Amino acid sequence: MNFASDTTAPAHPAVIEALAAANSGNASSYGADDITTRLKQLLSETFETDDFDFWLCASGTASNALALSVMCSPIGAIACHEEAHIERDERGAPEFFTGGAKLRLLPGHGAQIDEAALRAALARNDPSFVHETPLETLSLTNLTECGTSYPVETIQHFSALAQESGLNVHLDGARLANALASTSATPAEMSWKAGIDVLTLGLTKTGAIGCEIILLFGDMRANFETLKARAKRSGHMPPKMRYLAAQAEAMLTDGLWRQLAENANRKARDLANLLCARPGVSLAYPIDGNEVFAILTPEIEAAVKGAGVKCYPWPGGSYRFVCSWATPEADLDAMRALLAEA
Amino acid sequence: MNFASDTTAPAHPAVIEALAAANSGNASSYGADDITTRLKQLLSETFETDDFDFWLCASGTASNALALSVMCSPIGAIACHEEAHIERDERGAPEFFTGGAKLRLLPGHGAQIDEAALRAALARNDPSFVHETPLETLSLTNLTECGTSYPVETIQHFSALAQESGLNVHLDGARLANALASTSATPAEMSWKAGIDVLTLGLTKTGAIGCEIILLFGDMRANFETLKARAKRSGHMPPKMRYLAAQAEAMLTDGLWRQLAENANRKARDLANLLCARPGVSLAYPIDGNEVFAILTPEIEAAVKGAGVKCYPWPGGSYRFVCSWATPEADLDAMRALLAEA
Amino acid sequence: MNFASDTTAPAHPAVIEALAAANSGNASSYGADDITTRLKQLLSETFETDDFDFWLCASGTASNALALSVMCSPIGAIACHEEAHIERDERGAPEFFTGGAKLRLLPGHGAQIDEAALRAALARNDPSFVHETPLETLSLTNLTECGTSYPVETIQHFSALAQESGLNVHLDGARLANALASTSATPAEMSWKAGIDVLTLGLTKTGAIGCEIILLFGDMRANFETLKARAKRSGHMPPKMRYLAAQAEAMLTDGLWRQLAENANRKARDLANLLCARPGVSLAYPIDGNEVFAILTPEIEAAVKGAGVKCYPWPGGSYRFVCSWATPEADLDAMRALLAEA
Amino acid sequence: MNFASDTTAPAHPAVIEALAAANSGNASSYGADDITTRLKQLLSETFETDDFDFWLCASGTASNALALSVMCSPIGAIACHEEAHIERDERGAPEFFTGGAKLRLLPGHGAQIDEAALRAALARNDPSFVHETPLETLSLTNLTECGTSYPVETIQHFSALAQESGLNVHLDGARLANALASTSATPAEMSWKAGIDVLTLGLTKTGAIGCEIILLFGDMRANFETLKARAKRSGHMPPKMRYLAAQAEAMLTDGLWRQLAENANRKARDLANLLCARPGVSLAYPIDGNEVFAILTPEIEAAVKGAGVKCYPWPGGSYRFVCSWATPEADLDAMRALLAEA
Repeated sequence: MNFASDTTAPAHPAVIEALAAANSGNASSYGADDITTRLKQLLSETFETDDFDFWLCASGTASNALALSVMCSPIGAIACHEEAHIERDERGAPEFFTGGAKLRLLPGHGAQIDEAALRAALARNDPSFVHETPLETLSLTNLTECGTSYPVETIQHFSALAQESGLNVHLDGARLANALASTSATPAEMSWKAGIDVLTLGLTKTGAIGCEIILLFGDMRANFETLKARAKRSGHMPPKMRYLAAQAEAMLTDGLWRQLAENANRKARDLANLLCARPGVSLAYPIDGNEVFAILTPEIEAAVKGAGVKCYPWPGGSYRFVCSWATPEADLDAMRALLAEA
Repeated sequence: MNFASDTTAPAHPAVIEALAAANSGNASSYGADDITTRLKQLLSETFETDDFDFWLCASGTASNALALSVMCSPIGAIACHEEAHIERDERGAPEFFTGGAKLRLLPGHGAQIDEAALRAALARNDPSFVHETPLETLSLTNLTECGTSYPVETIQHFSALAQESGLNVHLDGARLANALASTSATPAEMSWKAGIDVLTLGLTKTGAIGCEIILLFGDMRANFETLKARAKRSGHMPPKMRYLAAQAEAMLTDGLWRQLAENANRKARDLANLLCARPGVSLAYPIDGNEVFAILTPEIEAAVKGAGVKCYPWPGGSYRFVCSWATPEADLDAMRALLAEA
Repeated sequence: MNFASDTTAPAHPAVIEALAAANSGNASSYGADDITTRLKQLLSETFETDDFDFWLCASGTASNALALSVMCSPIGAIACHEEAHIERDERGAPEFFTGGAKLRLLPGHGAQIDEAALRAALARNDPSFVHETPLETLSLTNLTECGTSYPVETIQHFSALAQESGLNVHLDGARLANALASTSATPAEMSWKAGIDVLTLGLTKTGAIGCEIILLFGDMRANFETLKARAKRSGHMPPKMRYLAAQAEAMLTDGLWRQLAENANRKARDLANLLCARPGVSLAYPIDGNEVFAILTPEIEAAVKGAGVKCYPWPGGSYRFVCSWATPEADLDAMRALLAEA
Repeated sequence: MNFASDTTAPAHPAVIEALAAANSGNASSYGADDITTRLKQLLSETFETDDFDFWLCASGTASNALALSVMCSPIGAIACHEEAHIERDERGAPEFFTGGAKLRLLPGHGAQIDEAALRAALARNDPSFVHETPLETLSLTNLTECGTSYPVETIQHFSALAQESGLNVHLDGARLANALASTSATPAEMSWKAGIDVLTLGLTKTGAIGCEIILLFGDMRANFETLKARAKRSGHMPPKMRYLAAQAEAMLTDGLWRQLAENANRKARDLANLLCARPGVSLAYPIDGNEVFAILTPEIEAAVKGAGVKCYPWPGGSYRFVCSWATPEADLDAMRALLAEA
């Protein structure tokens, strides 16, 4: 029973097949290959716009940090939730890539930014006061680190607030597919139509080997050449780019990414139902994606630990269980049996 | 006829097979998987030592820069050849990863550092003079950017000179396999036995999709935890590390990397022979690996361009032709025919 | 009536006299002059130890950031109060000088770190967890940004807690003289005897033109050469160093700095008494130095504003009034008259 | 006999008097004081234009690096002479302040950039080639590090070449007054009229304690707010700014800076004449300012060393003798006597 992370799962077979198919003949380096060209069209259809540029990157941490490095200057600050991945899990990557920008941490339940806190931070922001570092960027995350999803309306609302204060808006979409699946929003509705300037679209946790897409929308396209130079400089411009493009193409074709996310989400709901059927077990946060944060009873906790179930204790007292496209039904069955015995 | 670069070639089929084989079941993230464990043993055999730590990285640029970032402080300098890849082709990655160290450029024919220039730079180096940035590291490249190979003795000699002056020594081995193949040296002889402290071992140009190995030898192992943190921070700690390890394992098993390099080297020699058989054509540098730098006659130049042969004009007036494991014999035949007609 | 800041005051005449006295003949550059040599002895007496190195710097921001840059690596974090000067008033200088380290913000009343919050941060700190940036340094401030003073015992206690967790400890002493004056502690008791590894001793706000002293105690002296190189690199190694040394000497000789601080503190107490004599006016924080944070009634607020009294509205609803060595008695008299009329 | 450096000299008495005069009453911090306001007008007259912004800085190294940090991005390069102060004597400050830009070193006699080398570097520059760091800025120095002066026409010519290639142009004027004195050019002719975008005007070596002025001309004024934020962040925004402004005002009033430079230049010429009167002694470079680079005979060298004359051996075999406004005639007389005896 492995619910440790969606990154312990293998890649979907279609991804491996795509790599094998891509592995033929010469291809121009650094993105000038045929697959990357096709991918542009596929992204255009997926996001219902031509007004974007994109960059492929094997790393989620680098994708976020590269995106932020063209959105926030070294003398600016980025507002984000205090539990955001860019704050908690990226070892200072935003500070490194931006050349020393600051993260300004905002509170809020379920890893979603509290609106009052956001409004207060924006109201206090004074770019003309040279002594304190002013906010230049708002970074949202969807799914959040607590597995919850902002509704499209909230993203739109927060983006509008930020933009009124002169900030641009980044969306960390490492698990965007899961949020799209649970909210029934389209990629366009959850990104540029909601005011997102730069999206980091994750496919790794959804089912790729290592493949994320940075999308610059509208005015942000002016920073595309800088983004590429920064990608080069940080080792995120692979010569054999076609293999990243092949992963992305496999995932986006015929909506595979979304199907895999729906599958993972369904398993998470099933798991949550199993857990909550036990008296005293409750959810710390609603299930908006493929993650379950459950507050266990001492008996259930002991049983879970005793059986060696892989899951993470989470700050606040809950346990995090993550499902992926590859979570076997057998793991859910075993969990059902374990809970029945506990 | 494509002699543009060894990075336009596909990966060797064994690499794709290894990815497919690795794509089964869950695996711990960030290098705690079985394949990475096996790889340690394989590297130990390859380099005839246990006294090393290693890190896998998809990018050659990042591998060099990460290596240098644990070898040189932000207030130090790195001596390298003025045509070195870290100076010419990495968009300031060493400066970025080190936090602002300087590269001190040394001249020398065939992209090999001139011994007198190295001695002069070392003699002039004064770490106690606070105003000028002192050398902390010597970075060598083998194969060099001109396709030549330092003999093992020279690497040993230069390392000793550097270490007498308190510098540590880095080897950029993006095409190390080609150098090993042409000099018949062992990996150990060309690295730690020759005084190399940190080796960046490239497998991408040799036949992988994107896979390099940073090896820290001996005392440098004290910097391994820092290296990992810097890898994390720069987006070079992929969660699904097993796919990098699988590439490395496929390449190193049974000496595949060396066979592929020998194959590429042989094609380069064949190509050089074809070219030099033409009156007036000469080599700018000796052929020590898989690259040919040829000075063409106007007629040959016109024929090559007319036929759309992919190759690069090089500073100094020559053209660079690169062969890879995948260069088809048909391309050599076509070149023979082209030259016969010219 | 100017209570805007102690930095709007002029320098003490003794400082100008010292500059004039220093302005004779040649002097070796970069600290090799006679005055700097004498200053070492004076600091030794002031701090009752020979086990220190020091560096002179015209800027408080740079002094803090330079100190932190030899205490915290680019991949580490610095714990400080959420209202600390290094967070709120230095435009990202710590991030810049360290090469991208993070500040971890801790709450607490009166700009003093809450012990429970410090303990929690230390308990949660896990340098072996590569994904999150671990704490390497604790930075305290005394006087704090709210004009309060940590007792020596608290500094000692917090230092011990931090050092048990492997952190080193920095003290931002931009207004240390004021804290010493109000607590009757000696410089040694408030610094190295209390476990402080690096002290930034401010003399600018106390009465110099622009002069701070970074003191490295004990084991931290191993970083002195690095500190000097970083000072050089950031433009904080003035060739005509004698003029900084002259300021420091003038201030420290015969305890002038302490007398000036006592003078400023007394005026702040007098001002507080004037304000608190008015019904409804209260202090937001105790007066431990030369700053008064008063919560005014609407009438008093109107009177103060109407008279153009220079003071700052402070987050939380109070007003900050700062006294300096040069605050004229006439300003206090005028304030008394103003309050009497209000 | 002290010819070590113009930074070993004291400040001119007028500077000390100006500090004393400034030391009265409160003054707004951070440049909002009366003296700084007056200085704007004085600079306007000195440079015959209103189309500029300026920043005061105590450090020459920081002034150069701050200037370059708003002229060159972290992913760009700065062309300069291989012996330039920013390369040889600032411990990587440009790399630090820019966030990792590179210096591209150009050769040339007498520390003046060779025109052919400049043209070649510009011709080779290709900002669209993402792999190599493109030039964004040309940095000139006048006086150069060898004491020679570019004629105004050359500065104008080099600026035009650089700007045709899209570069902006910086002038390091640490000894600009000496160059102006020897060429009879006006400050305007040597700066904005010659195409200089940003000038670092040094007054420290001319006779101040520590005072440089960064001037942004024309379109570069758009970067002034960024310059201020970067100055703040690097500790170069002193609260008591009036004391920097007072130094600058004293130096610029009634052309004092120029008189002091003329005085120093004359002494250098006198010294050179004394030296060259000796058979076998020659000048390594022409005397265009206050520095003499002389190639001594063994006898003279022995005599100079024997008498403890302070001067520096220089790369290339000469000795550097620097005169300042304060060099006593007695030192020249003593030198005359020494040479007569040798």
